[in-house]
Amino acid sequence: MADKKMVEAITSMDEDFAQWYTDIVKKADLCDYTSVKGCMVFKPAGYAIWELIQRQLDDRFKATGVENVYLPMFIPESLLEKEKDHVEGFAPEVAWVTHGGLQPLQERMCVRPTSETLFCDFYKNEVHSYRDLPKVYNQWCSVVRWEKETRPFLRSREFLWQEGHTIHATAEEAEERTIQMLNVYADFCEQVLAMPVVKGRKTEKEKFAGAHATYTIEALMHDGKALQSGTSHNFGDGFAKAFGIQFTDKDNTLKTPFQTSWGCTTRLIGAIIMVHGDDSGLKLPPLVAPTQIVIVPIKQKAEGVLDKAYELRDNLKAKGFRVKVDDTDKSPGFKFAETEMRGVPFRVEVGPKDIEEGRCIIVRRDNGEKIECALDALADKIGELIPVVQHDMFEAARARRDSQTFVAKNWDEFEKIFNETTGFVKAMWCGDEECENKIKEKLAVTSRCIPFAQENLGDTCVCCGKPANKMVYWGRAY
Amino acid sequence: MADKKMVEAITSMDEDFAQWYTDIVKKADLCDYTSVKGCMVFKPAGYAIWELIQRQLDDRFKATGVENVYLPMFIPESLLEKEKDHVEGFAPEVAWVTHGGLQPLQERMCVRPTSETLFCDFYKNEVHSYRDLPKVYNQWCSVVRWEKETRPFLRSREFLWQEGHTIHATAEEAEERTIQMLNVYADFCEQVLAMPVVKGRKTEKEKFAGAHATYTIEALMHDGKALQSGTSHNFGDGFAKAFGIQFTDKDNTLKTPFQTSWGCTTRLIGAIIMVHGDDSGLKLPPLVAPTQIVIVPIKQKAEGVLDKAYELRDNLKAKGFRVKVDDTDKSPGFKFAETEMRGVPFRVEVGPKDIEEGRCIIVRRDNGEKIECALDALADKIGELIPVVQHDMFEAARARRDSQTFVAKNWDEFEKIFNETTGFVKAMWCGDEECENKIKEKLAVTSRCIPFAQENLGDTCVCCGKPANKMVYWGRAY
Repeated sequence: MADKKMVEAITSMDEDFAQWYTDIVKKADLCDYTSVKGCMVFKPAGYAIWELIQRQLDDRFKATGVENVYLPMFIPESLLEKEKDHVEGFAPEVAWVTHGGLQPLQERMCVRPTSETLFCDFYKNEVHSYRDLPKVYNQWCSVVRWEKETRPFLRSREFLWQEGHTIHATAEEAEERTIQMLNVYADFCEQVLAMPVVKGRKTEKEKFAGAHATYTIEALMHDGKALQSGTSHNFGDGFAKAFGIQFTDKDNTLKTPFQTSWGCTTRLIGAIIMVHGDDSGLKLPPLVAPTQIVIVPIKQKAEGVLDKAYELRDNLKAKGFRVKVDDTDKSPGFKFAETEMRGVPFRVEVGPKDIEEGRCIIVRRDNGEKIECALDALADKIGELIPVVQHDMFEAARARRDSQTFVAKNWDEFEKIFNETTGFVKAMWCGDEECENKIKEKLAVTSRCIPFAQENLGDTCVCCGKPANKMVYWGRAY
Repeated sequence: MADKKMVEAITSMDEDFAQWYTDIVKKADLCDYTSVKGCMVFKPAGYAIWELIQRQLDDRFKATGVENVYLPMFIPESLLEKEKDHVEGFAPEVAWVTHGGLQPLQERMCVRPTSETLFCDFYKNEVHSYRDLPKVYNQWCSVVRWEKETRPFLRSREFLWQEGHTIHATAEEAEERTIQMLNVYADFCEQVLAMPVVKGRKTEKEKFAGAHATYTIEALMHDGKALQSGTSHNFGDGFAKAFGIQFTDKDNTLKTPFQTSWGCTTRLIGAIIMVHGDDSGLKLPPLVAPTQIVIVPIKQKAEGVLDKAYELRDNLKAKGFRVKVDDTDKSPGFKFAETEMRGVPFRVEVGPKDIEEGRCIIVRRDNGEKIECALDALADKIGELIPVVQHDMFEAARARRDSQTFVAKNWDEFEKIFNETTGFVKAMWCGDEECENKIKEKLAVTSRCIPFAQENLGDTCVCCGKPANKMVYWGRAY
């Protein structure tokens, strides 16, 4: 009975999805609340996932020529106000610093909610000639937005992210970079997080404050709600004009450059939980699992069992795998439940009889499959299984998402789907913001994106019935 | 003449050391000032050094069992005030957030100047039993201290650092961890940054606000001024008592745990500049050089030269070296000066005649030595040279530091040294804070540390002449 205690403490996802999520975050030791309202602590198991995301995403950025920088965390009010749409979008939700030491500041400053204005101020000094272009910079940092309602990883007043900010000589180059980075995000989500995403463009209503165009990747969680998982913005020359950035081109004339920005955040950890998890806990794709393998010795007091477990561990470690032996005095059953809760991709069981027979059992967290394996072939087998598990987790997530993706050809169908269930609904849209407003008001549904992969589902708007030529993904979102 | 322009623009370090430092920071493109007073931008060349420091220091931390976490950047005022000495030390220099969004906050919060109070608040919830101990956590983040005078890398209102915070069942274990981390810093500085340091303990006057004992590593810059390069604090049970942290020990009694913290910052980049640099610019130890090798093609328009340069680059890159080809249309002389300014450890020159003869020239930045090398042996040769250069740079820095380290046996000698020059002065001290105050007042000199490696230089205090049994390093400090 005691062995099952950890698992029993978790709410079933069908019963109460929000509580299931909170239970996993807590039981898998990922993060915790703090005395600082709306801010959280990333505990080691949660932060280590972020470190693996950072390292792999950063490598992908650098392969495209990105360089990392670091800009101040403060924005003077006058700087924030330089781009009209931008300040309107962010001013209501920033934290204001008014005193430095014992003195009131001459001008108050906000803690950055995002750094477009700082990068513009920086580029204004850095960019003078076509020789100075492009600049393809990124920073890893935390930002602050004064949210009223917060949820671990999904929405907090301070969160961790990266923000790329680039500046180019031509509009074409800026658009190319915007799409290139969207593709980096999409490939990373699919190949590393095993999470299928829809790529597309945000409507005017949903685009970023100050952007010419915003592109997004949208994923679907287990409960049918969408999660915006990364965005890439093309600013055109709007910010550059507002900040007076100009350069002398090859033809010796003064021109205004073009900018982009793109970001993804620790929400991705929330996405991993809600795309892959089940009622036994977290399920981590091996490529972002801080611990990929837990070796559970069976009858660990029997002679040679722990020694063999340590030997297997050292061998796996030497091959570059992230592995631990659970040699605590807990029962094997408890250890099994705990590694499941924590989402460890592979559990390896090895006891006296196994050792005698020169074998062990590998148990996959993603599908529960048990695989017998020769002791001396363990590292090779794990090496083979990692891409298989990544692939299978991706396919399982895709199949589940597809089963929660619907088509609506008219308002009755559209309304019926969102009254009965939730998920992605593909439907035609006339392009009018009023229809978006009406849909949001009546069903609490927003346009997630105008996907690059368009389908022709008819020629009338699902909301107003007028002519429509855009197919949109709609959904309820985190 | 034009070739020399970059170099000529630099002030000589003997003429004006402060200006020489500023010139290098700017010409080597490491960082820049911003519109945010007292805060700086880390440009790609500067931030990449920090990334190399982070990666290698983090690996060393993790090898000792450290786990990374992330805590909020804000500290509610009531939390900051819980430890009396701590708040007195930091309250005068913090930035205060008073508004979130459009509303005033019920309680103002400061941006963390350091996170002892947040970690205590966190550990209070996490630590209940001896089974929960030790916790050996670290975070990489930025902190804010409202400094009046700022200098790039050395002192800025926001700076990047890591702060480790640990909690232990016994005082002995806490002291052991404090010293262990000081040794990690010292080894890192010596082995990676090629920078010799003195290890020791701070006096009561100079210790961290709220600490039981502070340990430090002190390095000596080219101008004879000291730079505190890393500190490790033993808090005893002071913070735990102030925050009410307790745990049930094995004997079933309630006990108070013991804590440590330790940190090092982006000042280390300033230290690298001022320990190794010369009048031609920056000199980077190969282990923290973002670019280790620049290949400069000679007569690059001649057939096959650029192709050979790219081939060498690709080969070096494949072997894991950080390498670039300078294929711009600048003259070779200009390229030489530029790679010197940027501190690139190795320049490789290859022209048509070299290619014909199957060789190239490697030029070491640290000592200017030119080494002929067969083209097909280049990667091996660079691999051999890296530890040699690290070693030689360390020895050169040590010889220079030793030449600037003096002994004073009485006040006259002490005063004379600091009136005529500056450097480390080793002298006996009675242990009385009044002598420290007097020395500071009269000579602007502070006690840097009571070194672990004590020498007996007599038995009277250099200041008051009373009995003394502590040998102290004194100096003027950044």
